[in-house]
Amino acid sequence: MTMTLDQAQALDAADPLAFARARFRLPDGVIYLDGNSLGALPAATPGALAEVAERQWGDDLITSWNRHGWIDAPGRVAALLAPIVGAAPDELLFADSTSVTLFKLLAAAVQARPGRSVILSEDGNFPTDLHVAQGLARLVPSLTLKTVPAGNVASAIDGDTAVVMLTHVDYRGGAVHDMASVNSAAHAAGALTLWDLSHSAGALALDLAGSGCDLAVGCGYKYLNGGPGAPAFLFVAKPLQEQLHSPLSGWMGHAEPFAFEPAHRPAAGIARFLTGTPPILALAALEAGLATFDGIAMADLEAKSRALSQVFISEVEARCGGEVRLASPAARGSHVAFAHPHAYAVMQALIARGVIGDVRAPDLLRFGFAPLYNRFAEIWRAAEILGDILATREWDQPRFHQRAKVT
Amino acid sequence: MTMTLDQAQALDAADPLAFARARFRLPDGVIYLDGNSLGALPAATPGALAEVAERQWGDDLITSWNRHGWIDAPGRVAALLAPIVGAAPDELLFADSTSVTLFKLLAAAVQARPGRSVILSEDGNFPTDLHVAQGLARLVPSLTLKTVPAGNVASAIDGDTAVVMLTHVDYRGGAVHDMASVNSAAHAAGALTLWDLSHSAGALALDLAGSGCDLAVGCGYKYLNGGPGAPAFLFVAKPLQEQLHSPLSGWMGHAEPFAFEPAHRPAAGIARFLTGTPPILALAALEAGLATFDGIAMADLEAKSRALSQVFISEVEARCGGEVRLASPAARGSHVAFAHPHAYAVMQALIARGVIGDVRAPDLLRFGFAPLYNRFAEIWRAAEILGDILATREWDQPRFHQRAKVT
Repeated sequence: MTMTLDQAQALDAADPLAFARARFRLPDGVIYLDGNSLGALPAATPGALAEVAERQWGDDLITSWNRHGWIDAPGRVAALLAPIVGAAPDELLFADSTSVTLFKLLAAAVQARPGRSVILSEDGNFPTDLHVAQGLARLVPSLTLKTVPAGNVASAIDGDTAVVMLTHVDYRGGAVHDMASVNSAAHAAGALTLWDLSHSAGALALDLAGSGCDLAVGCGYKYLNGGPGAPAFLFVAKPLQEQLHSPLSGWMGHAEPFAFEPAHRPAAGIARFLTGTPPILALAALEAGLATFDGIAMADLEAKSRALSQVFISEVEARCGGEVRLASPAARGSHVAFAHPHAYAVMQALIARGVIGDVRAPDLLRFGFAPLYNRFAEIWRAAEILGDILATREWDQPRFHQRAKVT
Repeated sequence: MTMTLDQAQALDAADPLAFARARFRLPDGVIYLDGNSLGALPAATPGALAEVAERQWGDDLITSWNRHGWIDAPGRVAALLAPIVGAAPDELLFADSTSVTLFKLLAAAVQARPGRSVILSEDGNFPTDLHVAQGLARLVPSLTLKTVPAGNVASAIDGDTAVVMLTHVDYRGGAVHDMASVNSAAHAAGALTLWDLSHSAGALALDLAGSGCDLAVGCGYKYLNGGPGAPAFLFVAKPLQEQLHSPLSGWMGHAEPFAFEPAHRPAAGIARFLTGTPPILALAALEAGLATFDGIAMADLEAKSRALSQVFISEVEARCGGEVRLASPAARGSHVAFAHPHAYAVMQALIARGVIGDVRAPDLLRFGFAPLYNRFAEIWRAAEILGDILATREWDQPRFHQRAKVT
């Protein structure tokens, strides 16, 4: 080991964000290092759900759309996201799932670049993002999804590129793109950029406006703590909003939804990217999730993320360097991956000991650090337990090899 | 009046479905005739939300995807819908909003009929359905949305029709289509049918299988009581499932979502129509909503719907026949509309007296009858209050003319 438990506890005592852990309900005896997959339950969420379900829906029924501002929820909740991602409130919305949201913006982007036939992405981008682009390309035969090796994206942008679609932080090892430089390269060639921020939003200090992003989407249920399957967000840079048309042009994106006009007439601004009736219960949970960021400086959050992962890497390498291989680069997001030939079984053994991370095929142990609630001492302890499990081959038991449906 | 309050109460006493009202929490002093817009709160819903949020998410965190079967929720909840709409459980899924779901099936349908260029619908179909078709046609330039006057649909189907898209029950007056005859006409011409069941599911006895439907979608938050903005359902007839490809081909519709393959490989069966991560909190509320149909025969439900609306029409016409005009045909769903030149103000006056319906432009008062919880005596009383408001011009006050955002 490179640090004592006392030293780790001293880091917690000095942590300017330590107070935020009380905003969550975390079970005793669990070290939760999977907030990058499902954020922990905010303490305020059960009450927020009860308020919306029992008092608003139950007592005020349909009148709640006006009385409790349900109709404004997608934008109101998105406004809480604005300081987290470095964008203006009227550039953001929460609405559908990440995949649906991505389809919406991807299709809008290619329609805004007529005559260009390529959606450019990289090999190994998150599968659902590639799948969504494939679905769009199947629907619009003039389109092609082209993927290039990581690192070759900027040089592959040309006059036929309609949109560059990338995930900011890789879901496996956490490699992070330099958004500003990709945006510049795309703009120089007349292409748009569409970023998936699922593994960045709520963990890194983002500056969507300052780095020149055109379009972005991101997950609500990871670092944003919105709950399982929470609505995703979308970002459309202000100058582009009037140029883009959502292909999922439902009534909530209409200029006057309750005029019931037969022809779609897009709303002004970001609202045109709404589609169907907003999911009010899910948005209530998400609103409570975003409130956990209240008063938090994103620079502090990113600094703590970096410190947590550095402690974990150092401790794991010191204890089990011969057994696992670090699979994350230095420029990374808020999770780290270590390769082990029996990653699945090792993770099951960790979970049995109360350390919850996850695995990604084929051989990655993945650990996420949510700087709002993870502590240095528990990171230290997780490394100690991992060392123990590897040293004793505790993972090599039949029960730890039984695959579950979701990994 | 044509019936006394005693007679209406006798109908309640004899109602075989009267027991189901206890499955809902309805506020005292309110006569709720808008369950066709937002179903009432089921008594079990707050507990279901607390269970999923506090115990499952809070205590078991990410492991809940396996431990509590979250990953199977879209199909498990849809299985509760199967007897309600007359379909097999493996022909149904709950996933995205109605508009998104409609886009998904509409695009899949036109891709399954290459060489045909027309989406056929009728003038006055629910706007968001037309808007979604317009969005698709803008994306796929070879496609055209063609609408014809109501009643002319069957004769307009021809060899260029890819899909006939209709709403089963009209959202204004409640006019109902004969699904079997439209399906036959479409199939004779080689076209597919796609039905929007938003105003039918949970109020009428449907037989999607027996009437030859190909595709359908419907709302989860009206008669199905799933809560504001609940996920919508989709139906794909078994024989079509392997022929159709969702354009919104996200990871949850992949044959092996956790294999993280770069190329989309659709799941077998209905699961291929999933897109993103399922909205677990919303699905928990929806599951509680659908449980309110437990043990209910749909024929009884439709019979009660018909009886409720008939009592309301008779009482309203007897009391205020000179002031309002019935705007619903005999063949209708579970809501009725009456035209009045000051419909908006009249409805505000009704709401102020505790009778909640809604209005639809330009001049319709709309009243929905949810046979699981509405009572004959309250329908009778609502008609009495409406008569009173019209007779005294109680609606003609400035406060009742102030338009809210949602009507």
